[in-house]
Amino acid sequence: MGIVLYDLAGADPDLRFSPHCWRTRMALAHKGLDVETVPWRFTETEAIADSGQGKVPVIVDQGRWIHDSWEIALHLERTYPDRPALFTGSTGVGEVQFVRAWTDTVLHPSLVPFIILDIFHGLAEVDQAYFRQSRQARFGRSLEEVAAGREERLPAFRASLAPLRSLLGMQPFVAGDRPMMADYLVFGAFQWARTSSPFELLAEDDAVHAWRARMLALFGGLAGSAACCTARPLDRPV
Amino acid sequence: MGIVLYDLAGADPDLRFSPHCWRTRMALAHKGLDVETVPWRFTETEAIADSGQGKVPVIVDQGRWIHDSWEIALHLERTYPDRPALFTGSTGVGEVQFVRAWTDTVLHPSLVPFIILDIFHGLAEVDQAYFRQSRQARFGRSLEEVAAGREERLPAFRASLAPLRSLLGMQPFVAGDRPMMADYLVFGAFQWARTSSPFELLAEDDAVHAWRARMLALFGGLAGSAACCTARPLDRPV
Repeated sequence: MGIVLYDLAGADPDLRFSPHCWRTRMALAHKGLDVETVPWRFTETEAIADSGQGKVPVIVDQGRWIHDSWEIALHLERTYPDRPALFTGSTGVGEVQFVRAWTDTVLHPSLVPFIILDIFHGLAEVDQAYFRQSRQARFGRSLEEVAAGREERLPAFRASLAPLRSLLGMQPFVAGDRPMMADYLVFGAFQWARTSSPFELLAEDDAVHAWRARMLALFGGLAGSAACCTARPLDRPV
Repeated sequence: MGIVLYDLAGADPDLRFSPHCWRTRMALAHKGLDVETVPWRFTETEAIADSGQGKVPVIVDQGRWIHDSWEIALHLERTYPDRPALFTGSTGVGEVQFVRAWTDTVLHPSLVPFIILDIFHGLAEVDQAYFRQSRQARFGRSLEEVAAGREERLPAFRASLAPLRSLLGMQPFVAGDRPMMADYLVFGAFQWARTSSPFELLAEDDAVHAWRARMLALFGGLAGSAACCTARPLDRPV
């Protein structure tokens, strides 16, 4: 039996938008491992209780429950060393941690206001109340206030991608010549935005845009062919 | 004969403050290579004409002139493969490029306004006119205007170190368990600030402060014992 992944889903069970789940999806594909994804909603904590906590991604691999996209990546690297490596050098130590830290402390927080209301609208009704309450408590403002003025914020957001843009002027992937875990860490954020919101964050002539296109094409278009929120205009370029 | 390094100096020839030269100093020490440093001023382009350009760091290694701290690091790694490695994996490719890109596009620009006027005051008189003119042209403002209000900017600067702080909560050095080129890239910026200005950028309880102290202690205190600008209060903790 293959690996099972509990994967955050919207009202449409095919809408899979979690940045952390996308890290895991890409890592599993990188390793060439079969996976069965189970759509999961924020409020379905009971279904993943065996993992000892209440958030996804959670995988079940040969009867073992593992949660947290980083821990899952380390598990995959240790358990399947003969498959393509996710990390260079020692597993999960090194400069890849800086990529992870930047993604978590800079990229994710700056992305949230652009997409938070679209995420909300894509959620199953049962999840909307949870999402609104937990996020409004976190931000101390309504979702609508957090989301306001995204057009005006776009130039600053694009400027904040300078390190990524500079890097991608030097090499085709974050990890170097080939995509590795470092790429999946960053890509998860952009796939989160892309699946949950029709708002286009990247200019077409941006090196980050070209890198995202390369990432969307990996593994037979795994991420590129994923369902996106229904508000997404059909004629929008990938 | 050992390697010669042309090293940016202030009015006091012992004041060596260039972030890029510090990258090279630390890389040379990491490799355990003997180096003779030659104090060099911005206006002494003739002295390094053999490098084919006009900026330092420049090294002369066995009669070969090499410039640019990154190119020098790659040269050292290729030429002295039996010495401790500066890079993990393929030389100079990989996530270390993201550390470099972040340092160059985020850390350096945000540091400049804190120290630019102190740098100016530490320069040899012959360099001051060049420095004022070139920097004012770059910023479109006087040095005094660029430098104004640094106390007010300090909280935002410290917040911008979040990725570094987060990383250093996960591992003792940017590169992992031991310092490597990734650390020297970032450290150069802090040593630049520390040698050229008495202004303290880091809070004492900051993980970045503790990491800087570890870096200052490396190689027998190479960076920790370096001369700092004379405006520096003697009782200031390292």
